[in-house]
Amino acid sequence: MMDTAHRAKLYEQVAERIGDAISAGTLRPGERLPSVRELSTRERVSISTVLQAYLHLESLGLVETRPQSGHYVRRRERPLPAEPQVSRPAPSASPVSVSALVAHVYRAASDPRIVQLGAAMPAPELLPTQRLNRELATLAREAGEAAVGYDMPPGSPELRRQLARRAMEWGCALGPDDFITTCGGSEAIHLCLLAVARMGDTIAIESPAFYGTLRAIEALGLRALEIPSHPRHGLELEALESMLDKRRVAAVLVVPSFSNPLGSCMPEEHRQRLVKLLAERDLPLIEDDIYGDLYFGSERPRPCKAFDTEGRVLLCGSFSKTLAPGYRVGWVAPGRYRERVELLKFAQTGATPTLPQLALARFLQGGGYDRHLRALRRRLAAQVERMTEAIAEHFPEGTRVTRPTGGSLLWLELPATVDALVLHARALEAGISIAPGPIFSAQGQRYSHFIRLSCGYPWSPRIEAAMSTLGSLARSLA
Amino acid sequence: MMDTAHRAKLYEQVAERIGDAISAGTLRPGERLPSVRELSTRERVSISTVLQAYLHLESLGLVETRPQSGHYVRRRERPLPAEPQVSRPAPSASPVSVSALVAHVYRAASDPRIVQLGAAMPAPELLPTQRLNRELATLAREAGEAAVGYDMPPGSPELRRQLARRAMEWGCALGPDDFITTCGGSEAIHLCLLAVARMGDTIAIESPAFYGTLRAIEALGLRALEIPSHPRHGLELEALESMLDKRRVAAVLVVPSFSNPLGSCMPEEHRQRLVKLLAERDLPLIEDDIYGDLYFGSERPRPCKAFDTEGRVLLCGSFSKTLAPGYRVGWVAPGRYRERVELLKFAQTGATPTLPQLALARFLQGGGYDRHLRALRRRLAAQVERMTEAIAEHFPEGTRVTRPTGGSLLWLELPATVDALVLHARALEAGISIAPGPIFSAQGQRYSHFIRLSCGYPWSPRIEAAMSTLGSLARSLA
Repeated sequence: MMDTAHRAKLYEQVAERIGDAISAGTLRPGERLPSVRELSTRERVSISTVLQAYLHLESLGLVETRPQSGHYVRRRERPLPAEPQVSRPAPSASPVSVSALVAHVYRAASDPRIVQLGAAMPAPELLPTQRLNRELATLAREAGEAAVGYDMPPGSPELRRQLARRAMEWGCALGPDDFITTCGGSEAIHLCLLAVARMGDTIAIESPAFYGTLRAIEALGLRALEIPSHPRHGLELEALESMLDKRRVAAVLVVPSFSNPLGSCMPEEHRQRLVKLLAERDLPLIEDDIYGDLYFGSERPRPCKAFDTEGRVLLCGSFSKTLAPGYRVGWVAPGRYRERVELLKFAQTGATPTLPQLALARFLQGGGYDRHLRALRRRLAAQVERMTEAIAEHFPEGTRVTRPTGGSLLWLELPATVDALVLHARALEAGISIAPGPIFSAQGQRYSHFIRLSCGYPWSPRIEAAMSTLGSLARSLA
Repeated sequence: MMDTAHRAKLYEQVAERIGDAISAGTLRPGERLPSVRELSTRERVSISTVLQAYLHLESLGLVETRPQSGHYVRRRERPLPAEPQVSRPAPSASPVSVSALVAHVYRAASDPRIVQLGAAMPAPELLPTQRLNRELATLAREAGEAAVGYDMPPGSPELRRQLARRAMEWGCALGPDDFITTCGGSEAIHLCLLAVARMGDTIAIESPAFYGTLRAIEALGLRALEIPSHPRHGLELEALESMLDKRRVAAVLVVPSFSNPLGSCMPEEHRQRLVKLLAERDLPLIEDDIYGDLYFGSERPRPCKAFDTEGRVLLCGSFSKTLAPGYRVGWVAPGRYRERVELLKFAQTGATPTLPQLALARFLQGGGYDRHLRALRRRLAAQVERMTEAIAEHFPEGTRVTRPTGGSLLWLELPATVDALVLHARALEAGISIAPGPIFSAQGQRYSHFIRLSCGYPWSPRIEAAMSTLGSLARSLA
């Protein structure tokens, strides 16, 4: 069997070159693409390879075929909806109680008959599943006793070495010993919260915020202070600063790169200011970088950690959004809190699963990761684009939607009359899962007419039909 | 390659029958065993198979060869040391701070040059490593996308079905939906504590207690109330009862079957009384049953959960001590606290590793587990016996040692002048790891002259030499 995840097929290589030219603006919407014969000559590939490449670009939503005329860069049919405005949460710390609602919302999450627009991860078919599973299978056979033995904190040296190598590329001077591996990114965040805060303490977060983070805050009996956030630039630093002047806060927790659900990306200058601002106040920064590798632009955003000279940033990440959610391998570089985080990790889950760590380390070492990420980012960017267009086409007048520059999520502000929880219930009856706004805030009704949609699945007639249905449901509630 | 873990070899079957006769007392210490020729005729196996069987029994410490004379049931050379007395911890709840000491003690834990008498798990060679890894490898190839996908709480239905089947055999009426799988047994305990207690609350535990439990109590800012415990029967119920009359306690946490480090086993009648006593006070019982399958007697002790009609018992277990520590698969049946534990599990680590759960479910379904457990129990019982004899031979006069009826641990009370931490340091210099008493109590100096030894490794010249060295070191400090 050919290793499809590892080596791109010929037609994919051809499609990739054209896709890059479209992304770069060299080829513009509406422009005619080379004829099949021209391209076949130029690329020295067969006619059928070129046809396959165009078909592939069509499926990505980048190219359209006009009968009797040829292939064209796809043109948007209508202008995109406006973006939501900067969030304005209430300026007070709230106890959190979203867990029951989240559990209710996700009850049907794993039903394969449901169209999954509710979960924040790439479709399994976009992940190098076969290759990873093969690494794991080989390791299971080779590793023998080591495979079933405990891998106690700080976790696999091989994996930590690979993490340190990658961190160098992000501008972070971290060695293997600066990392601790964890049972997924969730555990990393949970450990960091436990390390820097005590029950009753307040954590400053973005608004809206990932419901998983809210649940961790709830589980530990902490309070959430939601800070106004910009749909493109994330956390509003002035708002944060004035809050910190007024209230005692134990830590700030942000997702600077492609936050969930906003998809916002803090400009580098903001990251530097944030680190400086917290250093002045001697406050820890928990940085959730789980989407950092999924940028659509030309460069990976540097984590705040890159500007942290005093070890105040606890940088968390995971392979759940880029390689294998079910392997449950995340990590944390806890800076000056390393000793405490390691002790807590011992107390909480002890060892991290051995074989999945080793399989990921091998995959990273093999060099397939960057190639996989390039392909994944291109797919996600195209999917986000198509979903945005579908929103413009199907959703009620006045709907606003974010313009994320990475990740796979869209955050929609619907007309104020649309109750997101009602829409969620109706959509589920119609076989579609979405994430309703209220689960993204400790302030219940704050986002009652917002929803988050996942663009993790490749565009398909099934997704298209779901978006049309969802749009009608929203219109009927508007 | 033959599946050695699954089907016992011929000589092992022969050895097993003789071993059983010795355990049952049919063959007594010092008694002569059938000659090689006799046994070959009776068992209809070759002479060389019988020789292998006797060699195997010798390596287990059950049989000895006398030159020119034949094979005999091994006779104890000296009486065994006395048992320690019931523990008498201070009757007050203490904040816990053992983590740093534990971390220090286990710094060298994974160095393969160290003789591991410090870690509470069976040697990897006693586990069905090859067969499990093969299941995992097969699944990794077969399962495709499911293998990398999230397996969200409550976790794998296949595994939970197998757990329910086994629970039936323990006398617990639990269905698949009563279980939640976790990242190892540690996470199960951590979740239960988080579910029933808030910072500053007091948890009643055995004394001495597993340092992992102490660490979890410490991590969550709880207090430990140590209850006197009997070396054979565990938790002293009268002492517990009188404590509960005097102090507010949020929960009781016990290891009724082969507790760590005592190895004690609560009589069934005590278990019933404990459940009743807590029901009367409306208190939850966290039951750590991680060693329950490792009984040396003829029947598995029934968990307290079997007597719980009101859902007050949170039963926790794991496959780390019987199958694969590094797979990180544990479980909890949280009774009436199910909803809260599931919400906390979502918040803490989210999904549990997918493939390890599936591999274990298949292994359990395949029916190899009971056969494996029978062999494992026989080995551990023999190893505990041999280690106890070595203590009688090498350790200072006045040393006391427990008589566990399951598990793989021995708890030693050394003469009062021996400082266990000094002994630990000297032993480590000599290439031997042990677990010093002070890590098993929140009351620092309570067990300053106690140590815990693991009998997880098959008896060998290397272990024998280590026990002799350790004994000399202890004598030099006495």
